Amino acid sequence: MTIAPEEDRLNAQIAFAVEIDKLKRVIRRNHLIDGSRRENTAEHSWYVGTLAMVFGEHAPPGTDLQRVVAMLLVHDLVEIDAGDTFIYDPVAVAAQAEVERAAADRIFGLLPGEQGASMRELWAEFEDRTTPEARFAKALDRFAPILANHLNEGGTWPLFKVTATQVKEKVRIIQEGSPTLGAYALELVELSVARGHLPE
Amino acid sequence: MTIAPEEDRLNAQIAFAVEIDKLKRVIRRNHLIDGSRRENTAEHSWYVGTLAMVFGEHAPPGTDLQRVVAMLLVHDLVEIDAGDTFIYDPVAVAAQAEVERAAADRIFGLLPGEQGASMRELWAEFEDRTTPEARFAKALDRFAPILANHLNEGGTWPLFKVTATQVKEKVRIIQEGSPTLGAYALELVELSVARGHLPE
Ligand SMILES: [Ca+2]
Repeated sequence: MTIAPEEDRLNAQIAFAVEIDKLKRVIRRNHLIDGSRRENTAEHSWYVGTLAMVFGEHAPPGTDLQRVVAMLLVHDLVEIDAGDTFIYDPVAVAAQAEVERAAADRIFGLLPGEQGASMRELWAEFEDRTTPEARFAKALDRFAPILANHLNEGGTWPLFKVTATQVKEKVRIIQEGSPTLGAYALELVELSVARGHLPE
Repeated sequence: MTIAPEEDRLNAQIAFAVEIDKLKRVIRRNHLIDGSRRENTAEHSWYVGTLAMVFGEHAPPGTDLQRVVAMLLVHDLVEIDAGDTFIYDPVAVAAQAEVERAAADRIFGLLPGEQGASMRELWAEFEDRTTPEARFAKALDRFAPILANHLNEGGTWPLFKVTATQVKEKVRIIQEGSPTLGAYALELVELSVARGHLPE
């Protein structure tokens, strides 16, 4: 039997859809805002994608917000193979790059050629942070855990012995994507320090 | 102190962002594809939003896919107050409408006026299913659990005594949004029946 190319495309897309369900089982260090449990990467991706709609007006004028949303929905798919990297662990962050590239090859490679390539580009754009869209997306990705930790008496900060100096480096990344959200995040960090939930 | 309107807007958006984190704690009847646990509504929303990108070419020509993605990210926010409604329980479905309207008032009402109104419109459009975007979004929302149950030896179907006749009504909704996905879903249902995972 000769399979029609269209049926091939659909089957490839189905295989991808089945594969990415696994993102729901990748567990991050961060907690939900109520502190009840750790967050998984699928619900995190929903959260930051939705935040792009909520905080869109705080992106630089001309930012393509729909591209930001799409980018955030796929930005962590590589964690299906590579797992979550704790951003305050520099050794883990460095070693992770090659593992994530291989994961991107495999996972986006499940899709029909040009479709997988364009989704992989969204992921690479997010990682490179050279466009306003990627900088805003990354800002939201960094903003969410700061908000959660702030509201959760420091949340994972004391648990992993993170200092305000380290968090402020992440705030710089937020500022580069959105000055308004960056300024707000800095306020949260300083409030958390003042409350004794984050050591200097 | 007079608060600047811009600061008011940001504070309203932050309040909304904090509120919607609760969607991660709303538990659905459906299982993950591997059957390991029930799904929460936040990760479900990520999944179907991403499926809109994956299966976009199977929407009718001219469908605004970016609107579909945005719609799917917010389509279930009312469940923060109203909970998940089991779609095979007609009494629950009917009683739910009023509860969900009140939930929409409260939750979208946290946002600045026009922003909340436009996001609420996305939710109402999804519910009404009168646009190609809403029909395609609803198709994906119905497709995902059929795929999961099919791959999971019937998943929640036997658990809740669902029959093939009932699932085929949901397949009709998929067909109305995407004939290709509808045809594929019908094949899955018939295969599940043939394998004894779904009674006629
Ligand atoms: Ca849904």
